[in-house]
Amino acid sequence: MIGEGYTITIRAEYPNRPGMLGKVASIIGQAGGDIGSIDIVQAGSTIVRDFTVRVGDEDHARLVAEAVAALPGVHVHQVTDRVLELHRRGKIQMHNRVSLATRQDLAAVYTPGVARVCRAIAREPWRVWDYTIKANAVAIVTDGSAVLGLGDLGPEAALPVMEGKAMLFKEFGGVDAWPICLATKDVDEIVRTVELLAPSFGGINLEDIAAPRCFQILERLERSLDIPVFHDDQDGTAVVVLAALHNALKVVGKRFEDLRVVVSGAGAAGIACTRMLLQVGVRDIVVVDRAGIIYEGRREDMNPYKEWLAQNTNPRRLKGTLSDAMEGADFFLGLSVGGLLKVDDVRKMNRDPIVFALANPDPEIRPEEAEPYVRVMATGRSDYPNQINNALCFPGLFRGTLDAHARCINAEMKLAAAQAIAAAVKEEELSPEYIIPSIFNREMFQAVAQAVYEAAVRTGVARL
Amino acid sequence: MIGEGYTITIRAEYPNRPGMLGKVASIIGQAGGDIGSIDIVQAGSTIVRDFTVRVGDEDHARLVAEAVAALPGVHVHQVTDRVLELHRRGKIQMHNRVSLATRQDLAAVYTPGVARVCRAIAREPWRVWDYTIKANAVAIVTDGSAVLGLGDLGPEAALPVMEGKAMLFKEFGGVDAWPICLATKDVDEIVRTVELLAPSFGGINLEDIAAPRCFQILERLERSLDIPVFHDDQDGTAVVVLAALHNALKVVGKRFEDLRVVVSGAGAAGIACTRMLLQVGVRDIVVVDRAGIIYEGRREDMNPYKEWLAQNTNPRRLKGTLSDAMEGADFFLGLSVGGLLKVDDVRKMNRDPIVFALANPDPEIRPEEAEPYVRVMATGRSDYPNQINNALCFPGLFRGTLDAHARCINAEMKLAAAQAIAAAVKEEELSPEYIIPSIFNREMFQAVAQAVYEAAVRTGVARL
Repeated sequence: MIGEGYTITIRAEYPNRPGMLGKVASIIGQAGGDIGSIDIVQAGSTIVRDFTVRVGDEDHARLVAEAVAALPGVHVHQVTDRVLELHRRGKIQMHNRVSLATRQDLAAVYTPGVARVCRAIAREPWRVWDYTIKANAVAIVTDGSAVLGLGDLGPEAALPVMEGKAMLFKEFGGVDAWPICLATKDVDEIVRTVELLAPSFGGINLEDIAAPRCFQILERLERSLDIPVFHDDQDGTAVVVLAALHNALKVVGKRFEDLRVVVSGAGAAGIACTRMLLQVGVRDIVVVDRAGIIYEGRREDMNPYKEWLAQNTNPRRLKGTLSDAMEGADFFLGLSVGGLLKVDDVRKMNRDPIVFALANPDPEIRPEEAEPYVRVMATGRSDYPNQINNALCFPGLFRGTLDAHARCINAEMKLAAAQAIAAAVKEEELSPEYIIPSIFNREMFQAVAQAVYEAAVRTGVARL
Repeated sequence: MIGEGYTITIRAEYPNRPGMLGKVASIIGQAGGDIGSIDIVQAGSTIVRDFTVRVGDEDHARLVAEAVAALPGVHVHQVTDRVLELHRRGKIQMHNRVSLATRQDLAAVYTPGVARVCRAIAREPWRVWDYTIKANAVAIVTDGSAVLGLGDLGPEAALPVMEGKAMLFKEFGGVDAWPICLATKDVDEIVRTVELLAPSFGGINLEDIAAPRCFQILERLERSLDIPVFHDDQDGTAVVVLAALHNALKVVGKRFEDLRVVVSGAGAAGIACTRMLLQVGVRDIVVVDRAGIIYEGRREDMNPYKEWLAQNTNPRRLKGTLSDAMEGADFFLGLSVGGLLKVDDVRKMNRDPIVFALANPDPEIRPEEAEPYVRVMATGRSDYPNQINNALCFPGLFRGTLDAHARCINAEMKLAAAQAIAAAVKEEELSPEYIIPSIFNREMFQAVAQAVYEAAVRTGVARL
């Protein structure tokens, strides 16, 4: 499996004589490594070179390095990984917006000047939105229990993802987000902790918290806090899927009301997407999890959220496997695990089928396999057309929410975000290979922010 | 009372005719305002000018503005406050250390590249110190119950102070600190919350939490966490006081062991300073609070921490008032409230008395009053010589602590910090008016960091 791959640098030393470079280069090639560049570090009776090599995954990297090290006369000094190096000391930092060069600066931002700001807020509490970072600060909260597709890695190992998320918040939304990785998986403790740290934040972004715990946490925090709480794995995914589906339906000329939908996966994203699809008028949704189709009366592997699904989906009362569910489906939404969907399943779908295979890094079905039988195909990956990426939503959504000093993120705001994302692909540009804008479409983020802001004002949840 | 004052800008409009500017300027002067600059905003049949005026405090600002507005023909458009304006939207922000301009960047800092970093940390947990912000991140935690000298203003009104603190951390220590203002004053909840959010921080700085709650919180967190916990109002003050006293004693030629000390205030700072003075060998300390001298057997206004003081100080078993305690004292340490110490009290002190009157913004006794009778005088203010400022300690202390990946901040590390601060004033520079370095002495912070780092390594609490 090649995956998206990554780059390592192998520093090797060997006798400085003709033919050696060729030997090292060929062995890297034979081991499946793709050489990017070769640099001389030091030359004398021996020569030290850095080989920058693209590899498939960690096992492959080890294989390539071992092959080089096994060559007679070759000594491998070190193997470095550009991505790991780039993470050294972390990817984000705190930055002073105001100068602190003189005693006057100090007196203004700290004592005694700051006392006047504190008193102003104590007197008129809403001024915290004017004079502090609250108006632009979001806490990215995780318990590390569902990190990417990797599962329960714990709060420390989740931190690099939260930092990456914070970077996206800043780059695409101008939002100051800070990671909070919690050393507990207890729902009550998570809820209480977030409630307690809310005063200095203008919003809460829950991240990579396992289902079904994440539903309870989101629901309880939405009730108790007066700042917006968003669980990206639920709502972010739903917004972007809706935007992409909206455009895909234009391409194939179908309507929400007429669709037969199969959702694979009843985790955070699966349940949130199903809810949103019902909200926009889809009537026939069949949700499939590890235990097969979810139906009313199923006993195996249920929880209150799946019970809700059983009661609100599957109008044709199907039972059976994913394969059974695929018969005549117009839209497959994969939010589960790689390789689950077979070519034969896709061939059972209705005319002009739409497949979003969003499992990461390996989609439910590889586009190469599915393409002959599918009209519109999307994945979560950047190396295929139509990348369904949560990052299209949350930076602009929170930008608009914070600008409105909104009390929450309601359904209207999410729909507004989905519409703005969809509208970033113009009617005349729409095609089976272009249903969703690129992450580098800056105007889209602004449009999302504006639409969300207006929806917040319109629905009366803005403080401004 | 003039205080350190601040600057307002009065925008006034009046008929454009000779003599009017003079009238406005004189009325400002008569009201006690000190005009800095006068700018024209707009001129026609009327003229609009901005008067930048230095005033004493908020009441004075109002007085000056009202005096201008009361002039016939003059209309005051607005009165702005430079410090408030500078606080708009907050003083700090999150900043990306790594570029996010291309799809390759995105793949390295977020999915899929970041997954490798997460797995590396999950495999070897100590790598969180290598590949994340933990190694440089400090949470500034408050409950807003003792904000500056202003009391219990709550978590929102405390935020501007925490942001200012974060700025100092960055500017003088290169530390990335983020404010966490908690919506609770319950000891158990504060302790638990800090424990839960510890994974993504390399240290905890407790701030502006009222005594005696702050003692329990610090003690419990020091026991339960494997990252350093520091309460600046306790330990930070103690370190800087010790550094200043060390140098003051050189000036007057006395030794710790021979001192008679009076500490005014049995709050966070008073108790911590007393502890540290005992640690360095001071034998005769009398602590005085609102109810008078603390002695063994006192019933009024006691708590477990004052009981400890009663048992470990006051060897001459004094009872009575602050004034009684001052008889023959070598060193007065004020950590209480403004104006408490009288000239007559100072006159009762031993030869070459040292007075640190650290109440903010108004010292226990004004330097102008005390100076004739005191050999070395220090305050917490920047407009007198010898400013005892906590900011001299925490940025360098945390820099050294983080660089060592230290598990805690122990007594040796604090003493090392105090010695490094004291040593920043060279022997030949020492004088009654120069016992403590300036906050703008950058080398001092580096020296503190280095000394603390070495003490951490020496005492075995460094992870490196």
